[in-house]
Amino acid sequence: MNALTGMGVSPGVGFGPAYVFSRDIPVPDPDARHDGDAAAERARATRALEQVAADLEERGARAGGQAQEILKAQALMARDPGLAVGVAGLVDAGVTAARAVYEGFGKYREIIVGAGGYLGERAADLDDVRDRVVAVLEGLPAPGLPARAAQPYVLVARDLAPADTAALSRDVVAAFVTEHGGPTSHTAILARAMGVPAVVACGGAASIAAGTPVLVDGFSGLVRLAPSDDEVVTATKASAARQSVLAAVTGPGATSDGHAVPLLANIGGPRDVDGALRYGAEGIGLYRTEFLFLDRASAPAEEEQTAAYLEVLNAFPGGRVTVRTLDAGADKPLAFLPPWGREPNPALGQRGLRLYEKHPEIMNAQLRALARASLQSTAKLQVMAPMVATQEEAARYVAACRDAGLPSAGVMIEIPSAALRASDLAAEVDFISIGTNDLAQYTFAADREVGTLTALHDPWQPALLDLVLMAVSGALEQGKPCGVCGEAAGDPVLACVLVGIGVTSLSMAPPALPAVRAALSLHSREQCLLAAQAALATTTPQEARGAARAHLPGLAGLAL
Amino acid sequence: MNALTGMGVSPGVGFGPAYVFSRDIPVPDPDARHDGDAAAERARATRALEQVAADLEERGARAGGQAQEILKAQALMARDPGLAVGVAGLVDAGVTAARAVYEGFGKYREIIVGAGGYLGERAADLDDVRDRVVAVLEGLPAPGLPARAAQPYVLVARDLAPADTAALSRDVVAAFVTEHGGPTSHTAILARAMGVPAVVACGGAASIAAGTPVLVDGFSGLVRLAPSDDEVVTATKASAARQSVLAAVTGPGATSDGHAVPLLANIGGPRDVDGALRYGAEGIGLYRTEFLFLDRASAPAEEEQTAAYLEVLNAFPGGRVTVRTLDAGADKPLAFLPPWGREPNPALGQRGLRLYEKHPEIMNAQLRALARASLQSTAKLQVMAPMVATQEEAARYVAACRDAGLPSAGVMIEIPSAALRASDLAAEVDFISIGTNDLAQYTFAADREVGTLTALHDPWQPALLDLVLMAVSGALEQGKPCGVCGEAAGDPVLACVLVGIGVTSLSMAPPALPAVRAALSLHSREQCLLAAQAALATTTPQEARGAARAHLPGLAGLAL
Repeated sequence: MNALTGMGVSPGVGFGPAYVFSRDIPVPDPDARHDGDAAAERARATRALEQVAADLEERGARAGGQAQEILKAQALMARDPGLAVGVAGLVDAGVTAARAVYEGFGKYREIIVGAGGYLGERAADLDDVRDRVVAVLEGLPAPGLPARAAQPYVLVARDLAPADTAALSRDVVAAFVTEHGGPTSHTAILARAMGVPAVVACGGAASIAAGTPVLVDGFSGLVRLAPSDDEVVTATKASAARQSVLAAVTGPGATSDGHAVPLLANIGGPRDVDGALRYGAEGIGLYRTEFLFLDRASAPAEEEQTAAYLEVLNAFPGGRVTVRTLDAGADKPLAFLPPWGREPNPALGQRGLRLYEKHPEIMNAQLRALARASLQSTAKLQVMAPMVATQEEAARYVAACRDAGLPSAGVMIEIPSAALRASDLAAEVDFISIGTNDLAQYTFAADREVGTLTALHDPWQPALLDLVLMAVSGALEQGKPCGVCGEAAGDPVLACVLVGIGVTSLSMAPPALPAVRAALSLHSREQCLLAAQAALATTTPQEARGAARAHLPGLAGLAL
Repeated sequence: MNALTGMGVSPGVGFGPAYVFSRDIPVPDPDARHDGDAAAERARATRALEQVAADLEERGARAGGQAQEILKAQALMARDPGLAVGVAGLVDAGVTAARAVYEGFGKYREIIVGAGGYLGERAADLDDVRDRVVAVLEGLPAPGLPARAAQPYVLVARDLAPADTAALSRDVVAAFVTEHGGPTSHTAILARAMGVPAVVACGGAASIAAGTPVLVDGFSGLVRLAPSDDEVVTATKASAARQSVLAAVTGPGATSDGHAVPLLANIGGPRDVDGALRYGAEGIGLYRTEFLFLDRASAPAEEEQTAAYLEVLNAFPGGRVTVRTLDAGADKPLAFLPPWGREPNPALGQRGLRLYEKHPEIMNAQLRALARASLQSTAKLQVMAPMVATQEEAARYVAACRDAGLPSAGVMIEIPSAALRASDLAAEVDFISIGTNDLAQYTFAADREVGTLTALHDPWQPALLDLVLMAVSGALEQGKPCGVCGEAAGDPVLACVLVGIGVTSLSMAPPALPAVRAALSLHSREQCLLAAQAALATTTPQEARGAARAHLPGLAGLAL
C-alpha cells in the first residue's frame, strides 16, 4: 500500500509524519490486583478522576462554544459521587484503580445502553471520560491532539469532532486525512477555514501507522505513504506553481469578457475578517452570527451585538456585508433557546427562523442591533434569514426587518421548497442567497456528517444544480439578485458553472477565493453558460463535472 | 370554552367521555417518613420495582416490534441492582419507599441530563419508569391506557407514542384528540388505520377535564365539549348520512367521464388485508414489509417471507400488489441491521435502500422470496425500493430485481432529488410511486413528528404539488405509470387534484377509499385538471385548497 485515495476537500499539498488520532485505550486486566494499600490506590483513583475532570473543563474553557458545553458535561460525569463510591468499593476489594474505574463506568453505561437503540451518543461521551481516566492511571497518553509539535503533522483519524480540533492551528497540522466525512463535514469546513489541505472519505486511512511520512494532495484526493523525496518535491513545487499563478490574478471577480461576479467571503465572526481581506474578498456574503449567542445563559445585549457587527462592517467601507441572523437549533442548540419538545431529527426540527416564532424578542433585538450598526457605517448591510421554507415565512421576516429600519432583507435558499418556490419568495425580499450545503442535505435526505452518504453531498449532483437553476430563475422573474454562499461556490470549476446558470455573486471560505477568481478570469460568460448547460444535461456528478470541464479549457493552465 | 379546533386527520364523528392520558404523577413528599419497619418498606419498594418491570415486559410482548425494545429497556432500568441498593439505603434512613425510589432515579437522571443538551430522550424513558413505580407505591393509577372500557372513550393527550397506543382498538376508543401531532404523525396514521376519528394539533386539548363528554368531528377538526344531545344527534346523523352516500358509490375508481384511476390500499401486513377488501381496494399500492423484520435477532427465512407475501397476493387474484422492500433505519432500527456509526439525524441517515449496500444479502433474500411468491400466485406483483435518491441507485435496484426474476421493479419517490430527476429514474424502472409523507418531510426540512411544524406537512403546500407534477411529468416522458401512496392520496379533494396532475393510481389507508371513490365519481377528468392548475397557481396551502374546491362542485353534495 503506497497510496490511498479519498475526496480532496481543501486544496494544497501537505507533508509530514502521520499523527494517528484514536480513542482506543486497552481494557484494564480484570484479574489485576493492587499491592494491598487500598487507601493509596483509592487516592490514585480519586486524583485521576479529578485530573481528567479539570482537564476537560480547561479544554472546554479554551475551546468555548458548543464544545465547552459537551466538555463540561463530561467533567460532571468524572465527578459523579455515585461513581466514586463504586470505585472505592472495588478498590477496597483488591481491584486496581484502573480496573475499578473501568467497571464503575460500566455500570452507568449499562443503564444508558439498555435504554434503547438511539442512545449511542451519550455512551460515547461516557466512554471517552472512562478512557481518559484509565489512560491517566495506566500512564498512557490521553486521547487528544497535541496543540504544539516540533514538525507539523498530518492528522489521520477515523473522524474528528469539533471538540477534538478546537485548539489546532496550521503551525501544527500540515494536512488532514479522515476515513469518514464529506465535502461539507466539520473537518472539511475547518480545513478550508485554516487553509490546510484535507482529504476525507479516505478508505483505509485509519490503518496508516503512526509516524509514517504522508504526502497529502487536497486537490486530487491522493494520499501517498512514505513518498520518495522526489515525489514530495514535485508535488510541493506543482502546488507552489499553482499558488503563484493564482496569486497573479487580482482585483474584483469577473469573467474574461468582463461580466462582474462579486467574490465574497463566508465568515464566522470579526476574527475572520483579516483572512477575508488577505484573500481579496470584495465583501462578506455570509456572516454567521451564532458565535455571539453560543455558550451564554441569555442573549447578548444589543450594544454588544452592534459592536460585533460594526467591526465587520467597518472593514468593508462602501462594500457589501451580508449578515445571516441567528441560526440556532439542530447542531447548534442554545441554552436559552431550547426547542420545545423532543427532537428525533434536530436538522428537521425547530431551528433557524422557526425558533423566532416562539422567541420574537431575540430576533427583534438582533435586527435592531443590526440597524444601529448600519447607521454608523458606510458598508451596505444586507440581512438574511436562515431556514426559510415558504413565502409566508419570508414575508413575515421582511416585515420585521422593515420595522427595524433595515434597508435590505433577504432569505437563504437552503430548503428544497424555497428553491422550488423561489419566485414566490423573491417577490417578498430584496435578494436571495443559496446555501448549497443544507440544500444538498435536504434534497438528498442525506446528513452532512454521515460519511457513507458522501456521494450524495457532491455539489455536482445534477438534481442540486436543477434546484440552483430554479432558484436563479425565480429570482430573475422578480428582478432580484441571487448569490450562492455554500461550499459549492468555492470549487473553481463549479463556480464557473454557477455563473453560467446565472448566479450573481459567489461567497466562500477566504482561501478558496484566488482559484475561483483565476478560473472566472480565464473564461467568458458564454463558456460558463455552455459548461452549465452541459452539466445540467447529465445524470451523474461525475458526468456533470466532466461535461463542464470540456467547456472550460483555461482550467488546465491553472493545473486544476 | 365550549369548543376547540384542531386539524381533522381521520374522518367521522366520535362521542364519549374524555379519557385524559397524562404522565403527571405527583412528587412524593420529601419529608415523608415510614412507620419504622424498614424491612417491610424495603420489601414494598422491591415489589413495586419488580411489578413495574414485569408489567413493562408484558406490555412489550403484547405490542411487539419497536415498542417491545423500548419497553424491555425500561424494564432493565427498574431492575438495576445499583438502584435497588440506593433505594434500600434511603429506606433504612427512614425515607418512605416512594420518596426513596424518586430520589434513587434522580441520581441516574443527573448523569443522563448532565451529559448534554441532546439527551432528553433517555431521561423521558427513565422518568416514565420512575412514575410507574411511584404510582404503584402511592396507590395511584399507572400512566397507561385502559385496553377495555364500559363505554368507548375519547382519548385526549398532549401526544401519543407508539408504545402508549399499542393495545388499543376501536371498541375502546371513540376518537383521538391530541395537542401535538400533524396529518402524518403516528396518531393520525393509527387513527386512520383503525377507522377512528381524530383531531390533532388541537390547542388547549391537554386542559380538557377527565370525564367531560366530548364530540369530535375528525373531518372539520371541531372538538365540542359537553355538547347538547341535539348537537350529538345532528353531528352523528350528518356523519352517518355522509357514510351512506359514500357507501352507495362502488366499483373500480374512475372519474365521472370514465377515466380509470385504480384505488389501492396501503397495508402493513397480511392482517390488514380484510380491511382493504372491506373498503373495496382494487389491489395493494403499498405493502410495507417491515413487520417481518422488526423485533428479531436475524432476518426471517425466505420461506417465512414467501408465505407472508403469498397471503396478500392470494387475496387479490389477477389484481395488483405493490410490495415495498425493507425500509429499515430512521424510526425503525433493526437489531441485526444497525447503521454504521452515530446518526445525529436518523431520518437523514442510513435507511431504506442505503442499508442494502452494506447488507446485500438481506435485500437479495427478500427479492428471491418475493419472486417465489409471485410464481405461485395470479396477482401482479410489483416490487419497489424505499429511499431512492439517484438514477444510479434506481439502476442498481432494478438490476437486483431482474437477477431475482421479478417481473416489475419500481422506486418510491420520497426524496426531493428523485422527484426533480424523475425522468432519469423512470428511464431505469417499470413504475414510480410517490410517497408524499416523507417527500414533504424532506422538501420542507420538517420532521413529521414535530407538532409545531404541522403547517409545513400540509399536503396542499404548493411546493409539494410542484414536485408531484415533476415526478408525473418525468414518468410520462418515459412512458411509465406514476402512482401516489402517501397520505395525500386519501384526501378526497386532493385526490381529484392528483388525478388532474396526471397521477395514474392512488393508494391509501383503506377507510379513506369510499370518500375518494365518491369524489372521483362526481368529477370529470377535465374538472380535476382545472382544479390542479388552480391549486398549482397559488402560493399557500389554504389558497390551493380553496382554488381546487372551486372547480370540484360535487364535493358539497358529499358534505365534504
